[in-house]
Amino acid sequence: MTLTAQHHRETTPLRDERLTTLGSRLRVALDGPFAAERAVRRATFPAEGMLRDPELDVAASRAWTLQRLLDLDKQGFGHVGVPEGADAVSDPLTAVLAFEMLSHGDLSVTIKSGVQFGLFGGAVTNLGTAWHHDTYLPDITSMTLLGGFAMTELGHGSDVASLETTITYVPETDEYEVHSPTPGSTKAYIGNAAKDGTMAAVFGQLVVDGTGHGVHVILVPLRDDAGGDLPGVTTGDHGHKGGLLGVDNGTLRFDHVRVPRRMLLNRYGGVDETGAYVSPIDNPNRRFFTMLGTLVRGRVCVGGGGGITARRALSIATRYGLSRRQFPASGRPDGVRLMDYLVHQKRLLPRIARAYALGFAQNELIVDLVHVQGADDSSEEDQRRLETHAAGLKAVTTWFANDTVQEAREACGGSGYLSENQLVEMRRDVDIFATFEGDNTVLMQLVSKALLTDYKKEWSELDRTGVVQATARVAGETVMEATSANLVLERLADAVRRKPEETTLVDRRWHALMFEERARHSLESLAQRMRAASKEQGDSFEAFNALGDHVQFVAHAYMEQRILTAFVDALETVEDEETRDVLERLCSLYALHSIHQDRAWFMEHNRISSGRSKAIGAQINDLCRELRPHALSLVEGMGIPEAWLGAAILKV
Amino acid sequence: MTLTAQHHRETTPLRDERLTTLGSRLRVALDGPFAAERAVRRATFPAEGMLRDPELDVAASRAWTLQRLLDLDKQGFGHVGVPEGADAVSDPLTAVLAFEMLSHGDLSVTIKSGVQFGLFGGAVTNLGTAWHHDTYLPDITSMTLLGGFAMTELGHGSDVASLETTITYVPETDEYEVHSPTPGSTKAYIGNAAKDGTMAAVFGQLVVDGTGHGVHVILVPLRDDAGGDLPGVTTGDHGHKGGLLGVDNGTLRFDHVRVPRRMLLNRYGGVDETGAYVSPIDNPNRRFFTMLGTLVRGRVCVGGGGGITARRALSIATRYGLSRRQFPASGRPDGVRLMDYLVHQKRLLPRIARAYALGFAQNELIVDLVHVQGADDSSEEDQRRLETHAAGLKAVTTWFANDTVQEAREACGGSGYLSENQLVEMRRDVDIFATFEGDNTVLMQLVSKALLTDYKKEWSELDRTGVVQATARVAGETVMEATSANLVLERLADAVRRKPEETTLVDRRWHALMFEERARHSLESLAQRMRAASKEQGDSFEAFNALGDHVQFVAHAYMEQRILTAFVDALETVEDEETRDVLERLCSLYALHSIHQDRAWFMEHNRISSGRSKAIGAQINDLCRELRPHALSLVEGMGIPEAWLGAAILKV
Repeated sequence: MTLTAQHHRETTPLRDERLTTLGSRLRVALDGPFAAERAVRRATFPAEGMLRDPELDVAASRAWTLQRLLDLDKQGFGHVGVPEGADAVSDPLTAVLAFEMLSHGDLSVTIKSGVQFGLFGGAVTNLGTAWHHDTYLPDITSMTLLGGFAMTELGHGSDVASLETTITYVPETDEYEVHSPTPGSTKAYIGNAAKDGTMAAVFGQLVVDGTGHGVHVILVPLRDDAGGDLPGVTTGDHGHKGGLLGVDNGTLRFDHVRVPRRMLLNRYGGVDETGAYVSPIDNPNRRFFTMLGTLVRGRVCVGGGGGITARRALSIATRYGLSRRQFPASGRPDGVRLMDYLVHQKRLLPRIARAYALGFAQNELIVDLVHVQGADDSSEEDQRRLETHAAGLKAVTTWFANDTVQEAREACGGSGYLSENQLVEMRRDVDIFATFEGDNTVLMQLVSKALLTDYKKEWSELDRTGVVQATARVAGETVMEATSANLVLERLADAVRRKPEETTLVDRRWHALMFEERARHSLESLAQRMRAASKEQGDSFEAFNALGDHVQFVAHAYMEQRILTAFVDALETVEDEETRDVLERLCSLYALHSIHQDRAWFMEHNRISSGRSKAIGAQINDLCRELRPHALSLVEGMGIPEAWLGAAILKV
Repeated sequence: MTLTAQHHRETTPLRDERLTTLGSRLRVALDGPFAAERAVRRATFPAEGMLRDPELDVAASRAWTLQRLLDLDKQGFGHVGVPEGADAVSDPLTAVLAFEMLSHGDLSVTIKSGVQFGLFGGAVTNLGTAWHHDTYLPDITSMTLLGGFAMTELGHGSDVASLETTITYVPETDEYEVHSPTPGSTKAYIGNAAKDGTMAAVFGQLVVDGTGHGVHVILVPLRDDAGGDLPGVTTGDHGHKGGLLGVDNGTLRFDHVRVPRRMLLNRYGGVDETGAYVSPIDNPNRRFFTMLGTLVRGRVCVGGGGGITARRALSIATRYGLSRRQFPASGRPDGVRLMDYLVHQKRLLPRIARAYALGFAQNELIVDLVHVQGADDSSEEDQRRLETHAAGLKAVTTWFANDTVQEAREACGGSGYLSENQLVEMRRDVDIFATFEGDNTVLMQLVSKALLTDYKKEWSELDRTGVVQATARVAGETVMEATSANLVLERLADAVRRKPEETTLVDRRWHALMFEERARHSLESLAQRMRAASKEQGDSFEAFNALGDHVQFVAHAYMEQRILTAFVDALETVEDEETRDVLERLCSLYALHSIHQDRAWFMEHNRISSGRSKAIGAQINDLCRELRPHALSLVEGMGIPEAWLGAAILKV
């Protein structure tokens, strides 16, 4: 590195700290507790060659992606966060921030990195013990050992408990036999399986002496040095996909494959020297969820990557909308700038508001992740809450990313469809974010289930203490307090609870009240309907099946409340007046847009009058007009240097 | 062709006519007035090799697409509908049905066919005169002359009136000079321009003796026999796109390119032998819209193609959902079939209902197209109504197609992401359907504009006849009658107008009333707001700009009413009781889903109570449960043989 380059790298974060523009101050606010870390990463990220040529075919894309990842690893943006051997503590913050940075470039690189370091490396780190760490982590972090994370099976995409692959202990030879008993048990969609992986962390049912001990994970070598399948292993190639062409997803089948006993990742359970099953966790159900709990970091990463992708798309479409003119109008003979059309503003500005809101929520989630997985002491409740929020925010953010990239594509018209403008490439890659690391619909069910579990616990505690006559309403309130720590919102809401319609539409207290009412009432009524369903005669599946939409809505309402809380918390920390003013409006736009989208629910439940509902639309229009002059600053605040966007339309 | 193949082809439609299954009877109903024509085409369509290998790169995709189109042309599925020379009448029905059939296969082939025969061939046919027909149509239909349709410019995507390309008459040599005066005047996104086209129909401003005569179209040769650009012509290549890799979209620039006078497509205006401008249409505005009116067939085709694409996606996802099991439940130890989850039913069944509804509306649109462009006499009002409906249905159907293919992708989980299951490939290709042949948002504006024009005309007629005191309400009613011929719906609506909430939720009369109220009230209030805006002081652009959403809603409400009318009309023709029963439920599902999506609007405007609004959701669930047993028949009714779907997941 030349002295000049060195100098440049060191001064860039410093220069940023001057914060002379609204955009830079918004960026610091959005970066939140990790502003310093993110500034350093932005200043040092090897941005050159970060985007893949869309013309590359599958083979060339895979080769390019592997090479890029090797290069990044050398430059310190690869295995960061994964310990290089035993005793080293895994560093969730570094891992999450690295994934986030990678998401500014080609997403195949991001995902392949996630497979190698986050999933495969993560399984070894979190489910393995000292021998595994010593033996494999150095090669994993140096990428001399590439591996897959073989959880999903063809027949069991979202249902890990029902996996069919077996891991049977063979006392005669002190080995395990890994076997795929049915076509449905074929491991599917496994990254690194089609080509690069020489080992996989395989999920399967552990059987010891005829007794099943539930799902465990074992390391199975896949390929010999020449790249051929090892005896008993059959790898398959998923070939061309909707996107992420650089990730070699494939299938794995095992035909009575034997591996030594020590290959089982036995932190939470395995066979000891005597051939007996031992586990530090007695309850098999708890053991299962403890092992799955290690997936949480992947979900935090994927949600974060989706959020960055949405920001890239919004940055491109907004910058384009600020320069592109179409149709002359009175006083605008050269044509109206796209961003001056209200219809266009409404495509982009509410999504920008939501992108910020999700960013603040992601920051809080990272804080929680660091708390639970870092050096701090944390409770099982902290862990469970983290899992719930990670599941929900992953679902909400990746759906948002898909919607936003598509809207940005359409907002750029025909040029949005050209690969050189990146939007269609992002759209292809981010599509599957809605499905992998947990199908979004299933993740939202998990959120509701967790809320109901808390609810039930609360009820039975009330029952025990004799307060059986407690109304559902009281129970609901207690639960929401206990589970989401929405004290700030609650205080705001309380102030206007009696006369909600006497506030203005941009009164944060009213937003807080509406978000709280939506979350609480939907949860309470779901709990009631669940009780009724459980008492119903007949097909109990159908009784619960009928509640499917309601379950999704409860999770949605809860997550919206979390997100607003995060936004309000973040506002507290902003001191600069102009920055705070813009963010306050942005928060109102986020909140009103969320209420507006569910305004039918609010009217149906008599939370807002029809007249007030109509007024919300007009207020959103006003907020768009007020924020329009700040559009460029708002996308600058997303922290993506224009050159990184790589869109040809912005270079004209 | 062997005798056996011949025999097979002839008997297939006959066998279909036996209609022994519900699926086949639904298909005949959905095919409607064109059931016989469609049956013949399905039976004779060369389905082998209809899907492109997703691995092909841009160059290979283009070569494959061209070859497939040449093959299809030989087999009678290419230039059908385009006359082969002068005097031949163009056949809109055959053209539209051919486009529809092609949309069952690779969409690059469909679109390249549309460029060559529909747009380029269509321009020569409809805007040219005898010399053009004689000289060029034979080579166009035989594909020895491939051409582009060079309307869109980089700076003017949706604004044809503002095109900058000039076509200047040069009396000295009796030629025209075609010129691109600015970078923004570069022709962009032109199919056949990057590689295959040797000529283009170029839109530009006609200038004769210093006077502008507005947009006209001229044929300009592009390439020499060796494929090189002709002097003054610069072609460019858009390269890799979001999809449609087989279509060679590119740019065109002209530097004072001279072409003989006869090259101007002069049916509606041109320079005569004396060098004077002559036109059969005096009013320049009317001339402009007459020329653009010839675009209508393209919009009918693109909407139809989008509808077929949605049907393909629904066919794949529904068939998969009927076989795939996930998560065991009580009484279902092997796992629940995806289609048995209510949440899954609601992803697919309301979209199936809408796919049928749009199919019926498309049938009516084709009838209107044949009426206007065929041998019948038709009025200017018929033509204008056709244009409005074609614009609206193109927008509604292509948005639906994008939404539906994505939902189908997600409903198939990870396997939906594999290219071998076709959904991601469809999704890539159909994306741009929302933008080309008129950006959907702009098309919806056209619909509202047409409605307001009718409205204004109606008002001024009332004024003239002295009924100045007519209320807005009366005016609105009259307009909607006049413009949409919704007599059937109106009669239904009238029957329940006084006590709308005393009907059941599946009462067609109530649906009709709600659809009518939504369309009429939104139009009336828009007209009032437009009037107020026009009287406002200050920036008139901003006054109208504020109405952008309202304009979109009016077009949406009107199109929904058209679509319901078409469904109700189609129901009238179904005699078989079971078929009719299923279609009645499907119509209710479509109608209720449409009302449900806008239920906030209905509550805000006091058209439904909050209690009734809540009940709609439960009724939709009931309809899904009732239609669930018919899911397979419903996709069979979409008329796509399973083998054509080409999805690997259905072959297991």
